[in-house]
Amino acid sequence: MLLLHLSDVDEAAWAAAFTEALAPYPVVRRSDSFDPAQVRYIYVWKPKPDAFEGLTSLKAILSLGAGVDALLKHSALPDVPIVRFVDADLTQRMSDYVVAQVTMHHRLFSRFQADQRARRWNQLYPPSASESTVGVMGLGVLGQDALKRLAALGFTLRGWSRTPKELDGVEVFTGEDEFDAFLSGTDILVNLLPLTPETTGILNYDTFSRLRRDRLAGGPVIVNAARGGHQREADIVRALGDGTLAAASLDVFETEPLPADSPLWDIETCYITPHVAAISDLKSGVRYFSQVIRDHEAGEPLVNVVDRNRGY
Amino acid sequence: MLLLHLSDVDEAAWAAAFTEALAPYPVVRRSDSFDPAQVRYIYVWKPKPDAFEGLTSLKAILSLGAGVDALLKHSALPDVPIVRFVDADLTQRMSDYVVAQVTMHHRLFSRFQADQRARRWNQLYPPSASESTVGVMGLGVLGQDALKRLAALGFTLRGWSRTPKELDGVEVFTGEDEFDAFLSGTDILVNLLPLTPETTGILNYDTFSRLRRDRLAGGPVIVNAARGGHQREADIVRALGDGTLAAASLDVFETEPLPADSPLWDIETCYITPHVAAISDLKSGVRYFSQVIRDHEAGEPLVNVVDRNRGY
Ligand SMILES: NC(=O)c1ccc[n+]([C@@H]2O[C@H](COP(=O)([O-])OP(=O)(O)OC[C@H]3O[C@@H](n4cnc5c(N)ncnc54)[C@H](OP(=O)(O)O)[C@@H]3O)[C@@H](O)[C@H]2O)c1
Ligand SMILES: NC(=O)c1ccc[n+]([C@@H]2O[C@H](COP(=O)([O-])OP(=O)(O)OC[C@H]3O[C@@H](n4cnc5c(N)ncnc54)[C@H](OP(=O)(O)O)[C@@H]3O)[C@@H](O)[C@H]2O)c1
Repeated sequence: MLLLHLSDVDEAAWAAAFTEALAPYPVVRRSDSFDPAQVRYIYVWKPKPDAFEGLTSLKAILSLGAGVDALLKHSALPDVPIVRFVDADLTQRMSDYVVAQVTMHHRLFSRFQADQRARRWNQLYPPSASESTVGVMGLGVLGQDALKRLAALGFTLRGWSRTPKELDGVEVFTGEDEFDAFLSGTDILVNLLPLTPETTGILNYDTFSRLRRDRLAGGPVIVNAARGGHQREADIVRALGDGTLAAASLDVFETEPLPADSPLWDIETCYITPHVAAISDLKSGVRYFSQVIRDHEAGEPLVNVVDRNRGY
Repeated sequence: MLLLHLSDVDEAAWAAAFTEALAPYPVVRRSDSFDPAQVRYIYVWKPKPDAFEGLTSLKAILSLGAGVDALLKHSALPDVPIVRFVDADLTQRMSDYVVAQVTMHHRLFSRFQADQRARRWNQLYPPSASESTVGVMGLGVLGQDALKRLAALGFTLRGWSRTPKELDGVEVFTGEDEFDAFLSGTDILVNLLPLTPETTGILNYDTFSRLRRDRLAGGPVIVNAARGGHQREADIVRALGDGTLAAASLDVFETEPLPADSPLWDIETCYITPHVAAISDLKSGVRYFSQVIRDHEAGEPLVNVVDRNRGY
């Protein structure tokens, strides 16, 4: 039996789609009457404190979100594998977002907008893509895809991850020790890390001030498409104000929805989107997790299982 | 002998660079004293009416610009081959511009900017790249490179040219007869045509109203990176005002610099850059045309020669 436990999304629509995809396998919602001991899989988004109570036969927790930082903080998380969402459509959308923000900043969008507002014809020449270095933090599913797309555009690329990696056409830096070297050659910093105790608050003033400052007119730029917990918004406000950063594209925030009194809204060089970089689409989510359940019921091992020690 | 005749750019810098690159081949400027009958090549940008007077031994006209529309209108143009600038760096910069504008609009930039100004958290989901169709007018050096980069990003692609073509992964439409079919499936229209009598004013209200209207939130978008003569600015103002167009990115204008009283400056969904999409860089220009001269002096045929009948 699959139990759905989804907050803030249309649980009924997901239930209908899973019921159809898995039939005759039983699918239930919290509000249905069912025997908790029969539940083998639970599909969750923002689970309540009692979400896992009585689920004595649970085989796996399936996470609607690609990131499991919030789930891992659940106070009564059963000790079963957690399967996260990994999907070509989600990845494509994230790369769409990253490429749009990176190329816009690389072409000095903020400068030309300011000139336009002043009706100023100022022929400033942006560097060519190969003259700009994009640095991607996080070289997992999302980071690697974004780098592949940026490579096709001709950017100079570097990446940063926890463990060593070899990626074609990307200068890879590893761990704390090489973080400074990574930053010092980066013009446009893209964050695609998972949120863990190690990465919390990594987008802070100190990080910003270590980015390369001699290439892009106006200075370095950050793009955060991972989690709000990665960024110190007070530091972003300060860095955009004093020129340490030329611009910031933020899809995620410390508090979401971003409170109406946040100073970020009014900063012209801060580009806000409401956590829509990459969504877990119903169709692809149902396709993916139905396959996970079918394969596992047929005796195959689970894929994309979260490592609780690493935190992602 | 190479004669330089450049307006509105730093002719002295170009002369110094050509002198060094071609030495001992003689390089002169208009203001130098020299025998016009000795001039075999003239390198021009916005040539004056008397530019070609007395050049009785002229072998070729070399055009600093990639587009030769203005040059072809010169009232005393000698009947010698015109070589235009074709260069990997120029092409890269044009694709940088096109990709930045296309991806920004595809990600509904104008909508999110309007939401930000209103401090509104509105989770509108942009389509994925494959769900949006980019249509490129002009499938020459620039159009083909832009399409190659957009293909790597996953967009659905179509193109339009004068003569039939086969391009991998691009649905190609040909000539007047297929213009309507081309437009009716296009969400984001990119103009990379040369300016000729046939293409003058092609970006007009009628064209805009034939674009596809059911995909991108807000409606279709145009990107003009070719020539100001392609666009009817009054029509753009009208189309942005009545929703026929959701947004426009314009790098070129009917009159340049764009006059301070143009209504385009104040339209929030009109994204203005001051003719900087792709510049003819001194270093690459000198490299390219020095090679053209050396090869031709060694008896080789000229490359990238303009067809005066076609007008490009
Ligand atoms: N805003 C949105 O709409 C949205 C949508 C989807 C996902 N996301 C976020 O994006 C995150 C990344 O997703 P993914 O699928 O690419 O994850 P992933 O495949 O697990 O990759 C994570 C990457 O981060 C690196 N990393 C982790 N901790 C690190 C540390 N302390 N120092 C340096 N590198 C570290 C990992 O290094 P190793 O390779 O060495 O393990 C790995 O390369 C998710 O966790 C989620 O929070 C956001
Ligand atoms: N804004 C800037 O910074 C900037 C910089 C550089 C260049 N430009 C402009 O970009 C233009 C294109 O450059 P390019 O190097 O790509 O030119 P190109 O290689 O000569 O290609 C021109 C393309 O346009 C097509 N075409 C011409 N007339 C047409 C018509 N009447 N109907 C349909 N298609 C037509 C041609 O069709 P066929 O293939 O059938 O011949 C060809 O595919 C230049 O002319 C220049 O004006 C602007």
